[in-house]
Amino acid sequence: MKKTEKPFILATNDDGIAAPGIHALVTELRKHAEVAVVAPDSEKSAVGHAITLSDPIRVTDFSKSGQWQGFAVSGTPSDCVKIAVGALLDRRPDMVISGINLGSNAGINVIYSGTVSAATEGTILGIPSIAVSVTTYTEPIFQPAARFAVKMMEIVLAKGLPERTLLNINIPNLPGEKITGVRITRQGMANFAETFDKRVDPRNRVYYWMDGQKEEIQASEDVDDEAVKRGCISITPIKYDLTNYDFMEDLQHWLPEINV
Amino acid sequence: MKKTEKPFILATNDDGIAAPGIHALVTELRKHAEVAVVAPDSEKSAVGHAITLSDPIRVTDFSKSGQWQGFAVSGTPSDCVKIAVGALLDRRPDMVISGINLGSNAGINVIYSGTVSAATEGTILGIPSIAVSVTTYTEPIFQPAARFAVKMMEIVLAKGLPERTLLNINIPNLPGEKITGVRITRQGMANFAETFDKRVDPRNRVYYWMDGQKEEIQASEDVDDEAVKRGCISITPIKYDLTNYDFMEDLQHWLPEINV
Repeated sequence: MKKTEKPFILATNDDGIAAPGIHALVTELRKHAEVAVVAPDSEKSAVGHAITLSDPIRVTDFSKSGQWQGFAVSGTPSDCVKIAVGALLDRRPDMVISGINLGSNAGINVIYSGTVSAATEGTILGIPSIAVSVTTYTEPIFQPAARFAVKMMEIVLAKGLPERTLLNINIPNLPGEKITGVRITRQGMANFAETFDKRVDPRNRVYYWMDGQKEEIQASEDVDDEAVKRGCISITPIKYDLTNYDFMEDLQHWLPEINV
Repeated sequence: MKKTEKPFILATNDDGIAAPGIHALVTELRKHAEVAVVAPDSEKSAVGHAITLSDPIRVTDFSKSGQWQGFAVSGTPSDCVKIAVGALLDRRPDMVISGINLGSNAGINVIYSGTVSAATEGTILGIPSIAVSVTTYTEPIFQPAARFAVKMMEIVLAKGLPERTLLNINIPNLPGEKITGVRITRQGMANFAETFDKRVDPRNRVYYWMDGQKEEIQASEDVDDEAVKRGCISITPIKYDLTNYDFMEDLQHWLPEINV
């Protein structure tokens, strides 16, 4: 790594490299860090932790109105982090910051989130990583989120993160002075009730649109989306060891004879 | 639900509805259950927990050589489970079985696995679910895996599964009599060392292929891929609450002033 005062940050997202959220993040980060931007060339929301094995991955130079340069990648957010670290960057980033996502990545959404998957990928590669989202789809206020991302960057760089753990940060869409606190939260478990809108195309073929409404459930303030509803920033530590350790012993007693 | 002696099983996979693994599974299941088959219309490996929000989803009738009927879906494994339960099936399945996947879904692969994501989706919908893989890419022996899937179906239907928990089953590619045991395991954490093969296309544009080698690490027999290496069937209970509870308290002490 080059000698430098400033940390070296990889910024990525799942809304695509041209999205306003990553621009707000990069603009703020650049005051405090050297920033490399490697992000999908188009929107890749709800792609989960997908990677591209069957198709070639293309990389294009990208310039944001002459303000910063980056690489646009024809893949998923996970691909972006892998190819940045594995092929595009000349040194290893000190941290991965994914965002600022337009829309909440809380509750069950975390499982589908491209934003979180990019931070997970950084974590898998041994790089401390955070995901940052603003919980709105309309008229986002990115500045407080960008400034909070920088604060968290400083803390994480100073303290490190536990093995296999990243931080998933959701920020209410409020001006800074209206944000009422910061809460350490757990992942909420409100489900979506999916609906499928069945239609017929001009060639008389059936197709469906998936849509859905999030269940409204009573939740305490230590749940990610509830904290945000109350005007707080939510920070959930997420780990990618999916083993249900508590259930391992019970399960031991269920074992069938092999005999297959 | 119709009165019937037999359980009603939703079978899906990520290798596509025409893959031999799901055919072996469905053939065996049909001796013991009513089976609905709803699976991707093409291979969807390594798609993680992706869902299709921006594109219409098409559903086509599929017939496997007159032996069984199903629905081929132009989406991901998660989409298949969602649309099966939400729109295609006339009653709720008693269980979701995803597989039989060609290739191991153990260790870090679990995160990228379409096979596991389909079982996760079933679990989210409140349906007991399992994922079944044979750990080879060549000359698979599906029969022992199919028979073991039926055994596990019977156990899970009798006992249920804990909230938010599914079973991820990996089966060594051996004839039944050579399988040496069944192990309850935890998710292994051997990483992939990714490589990016940089090439130039006929139009002189750069592209990359992602490839990789799994790290060889010393692991104990209670780790998923190690159990399989030793000739055992591996059963890992997987849960989709990703919160790192142990770290929540520490993190509490890190909180910055808000001031954004």
